[in-house]
Amino acid sequence: MSAYDDSAPGLSRRRFLGAASSLAVAAGVIGTGGAAAAESLAKPHAAARTMSGVEPFYGVHQGGIVTAQQTHSLFAALDLEATARADVIALLKRWTVAANRLSRGETAQPLAVPKDAAPLDGGSAEGLRPARLTVTFGFGPGLFISDGKDRYGLASRRPDALVDLPKFNGDQLVAEKCGGDLSIQVCADDPQVAFHALRELLALADGVASIKWMQSGFASPPAAGGTGRNLMGFKDGTNNPATHSSDAMNKVVWAGDEGGWMKEGSYVVVRRIRIALEHWDKTELGFQEEVVGRDKANGAPLGKTHEFDPLDLNAEDKDGNPVIPANAHARLSSAAENDGAQILRRAYSYNDGVGFYAERWPPWRQGIMLDAGLFFVAYQRDPRTGFIKINKKLATEDIMNQFTTHVGSAIFACPPGVSEGSFIGATLFEGLAG
Amino acid sequence: MSAYDDSAPGLSRRRFLGAASSLAVAAGVIGTGGAAAAESLAKPHAAARTMSGVEPFYGVHQGGIVTAQQTHSLFAALDLEATARADVIALLKRWTVAANRLSRGETAQPLAVPKDAAPLDGGSAEGLRPARLTVTFGFGPGLFISDGKDRYGLASRRPDALVDLPKFNGDQLVAEKCGGDLSIQVCADDPQVAFHALRELLALADGVASIKWMQSGFASPPAAGGTGRNLMGFKDGTNNPATHSSDAMNKVVWAGDEGGWMKEGSYVVVRRIRIALEHWDKTELGFQEEVVGRDKANGAPLGKTHEFDPLDLNAEDKDGNPVIPANAHARLSSAAENDGAQILRRAYSYNDGVGFYAERWPPWRQGIMLDAGLFFVAYQRDPRTGFIKINKKLATEDIMNQFTTHVGSAIFACPPGVSEGSFIGATLFEGLAG
Repeated sequence: MSAYDDSAPGLSRRRFLGAASSLAVAAGVIGTGGAAAAESLAKPHAAARTMSGVEPFYGVHQGGIVTAQQTHSLFAALDLEATARADVIALLKRWTVAANRLSRGETAQPLAVPKDAAPLDGGSAEGLRPARLTVTFGFGPGLFISDGKDRYGLASRRPDALVDLPKFNGDQLVAEKCGGDLSIQVCADDPQVAFHALRELLALADGVASIKWMQSGFASPPAAGGTGRNLMGFKDGTNNPATHSSDAMNKVVWAGDEGGWMKEGSYVVVRRIRIALEHWDKTELGFQEEVVGRDKANGAPLGKTHEFDPLDLNAEDKDGNPVIPANAHARLSSAAENDGAQILRRAYSYNDGVGFYAERWPPWRQGIMLDAGLFFVAYQRDPRTGFIKINKKLATEDIMNQFTTHVGSAIFACPPGVSEGSFIGATLFEGLAG
Repeated sequence: MSAYDDSAPGLSRRRFLGAASSLAVAAGVIGTGGAAAAESLAKPHAAARTMSGVEPFYGVHQGGIVTAQQTHSLFAALDLEATARADVIALLKRWTVAANRLSRGETAQPLAVPKDAAPLDGGSAEGLRPARLTVTFGFGPGLFISDGKDRYGLASRRPDALVDLPKFNGDQLVAEKCGGDLSIQVCADDPQVAFHALRELLALADGVASIKWMQSGFASPPAAGGTGRNLMGFKDGTNNPATHSSDAMNKVVWAGDEGGWMKEGSYVVVRRIRIALEHWDKTELGFQEEVVGRDKANGAPLGKTHEFDPLDLNAEDKDGNPVIPANAHARLSSAAENDGAQILRRAYSYNDGVGFYAERWPPWRQGIMLDAGLFFVAYQRDPRTGFIKINKKLATEDIMNQFTTHVGSAIFACPPGVSEGSFIGATLFEGLAG
């Protein structure tokens, strides 16, 4: 009846709004009877699991971490307003059901509504593809303790690894772009699908948690495959551990037995890094390559030929200078310079137009500069031996700091994946009274 | 040599950075000789014109107006700083060459540089597809007269149709999101390709014009084709004139003989319309449909069955009420209610996160609400009988105003298309001295 009902089976998302409305119109049915009938039409198809563009929500690990990177990301941090642990658990249960549905290309909630009630799904992704949507949830320090208060009786469960990030040299953090008690990252190959999902998840948090900040980002895959580029024009992520290697992921990304309820989860650190693009673009090519430590065109380490050639940190030129400068980003962020520390980077470029920093500029520059750069996202088994270890060195020594400013920052514990019938973060609450 | 040189011919954009660098490395050539040789490698291929994903830049009309809508848009307004007309013309010539190259998937500028100079293209779209990129340029009122000053001797050439937009009822315009002397809209099926193009064009304006504001947007096509949805969850653009009909476009979109140098150009009005999504999402479905005047699921006018059924503005229900309410958006924006006025809408949804309005909110709401909505873009032959005519009615009567706030606004004269060897806006300067 509706246009999107004519789409190829399995390709279009969210047939429900159309099905429900058409039914209501055709049968003249208003009310719960019609809603229940419509619901049966909207039930998940057995084929949905394997249909093109669907990333499974349920699993040992959460999606969106080792998932092949989607082209669009929305990262939202929320502040908790709930006064009772039960309200937090109820929210996590609602989110679990909705995230699974959304990843399958369905509406956020299963029930239809009559014309005299607000729709349970706003419908802005009706007819669009599932677009490999993933939803990744995280718990910030504030879930466990906030302003010294143990609001939900969870303080004793705070993972040791979920530390408060230290201040790093050069940080210029803006409070409204930092922290949060909960996080939701939605990634998808379609920005409208991603925004729809996040909006519906926010609506489900009404009265329990509200959004504090949100960052959108994009990452475009090269036509020929391989590593994408960031806004500096350099390949970004060459040095990542192999996501297809469970050994590497168990070592670098997933919490092990030491994690307790966090086992098979991971810790995410995000940093909103503004890049002075106007400055960078006027910098000579050779210096750009010395800053990064790599060839701009093919990503090879300086002195090498191919992108994935190992860095030779000992190589010297004829004057005895290191081929990869002492303050180059690739050197300082390498495992060899950080006692073996590694992280899984899954960064997105961002472009927020102009004006965010207007109040910080002199009048003659107000509104002129671009607010664009890198939304750095890194997963690791333990931030103390991951991001914090590496960034402590970078913050003080990396010559790239000439061009970058960290203005947003947050850390979250991303719990293990969910099995059907359970809910996200369930292990956190196991054995607690109430 | 570089990773993206291995891509399928014709599919990957901007092979130049790689070609130039590889050459310089291989031959040990540094300087203009190497640059010139590299340039010959980067020359446009004859096949490029017809290659997948390339929208032609040259033509009778500018691209990006009747072009099938791309998924991503960046709209930027610039303020002119130039003191001489010749500098403006030189900029337009640089932009013309660059826009043509960018649409073909090439770098913004044709010349390579040695390692000791800044790259002429930042390289952030290296290896990406052309992505149907279009660049649409516009001239704001300030090009012709600014603060009463005729800076460039163009005041007499200001088109009658390029009026200053009147204040509309309910406008809550923010100065930093309004106006501009020049506009660049970049549309593409890839956000990174779009951002790269805009950034390179801005760099080419250095010292002549600088960015005042920028708005990004997205529009996702339904899997089954047809009309896409906006963030209200309704199909958006059903009532548009047919872009494939040159009769309709000549009537509605393109300036005719009355336009003088603007003949075959068009006038664009943009409005940044914030939607109170949290409010809208709590509104009952039946009321949402009365606000729009259409069925939410399939887009049919109220009382009709199919999306493209004509509105029956005279239909009444059994109680004598109009089926399409007197204050419904579809009724008030219809040609029938506006003496036949029509516009070509090419809107994008936007999501700018939270916080833009923070300074306007009471403390207890700061940072909470989403700054998302519709970046309204409308093309027309004459704004006085197009957008202004229609919006005057909408601004006072449309019940949708309960949920929408116009916070940004601008108007530009988009000159006719360019033929090879000429430059954008050339007709404006014909016959002028100097």
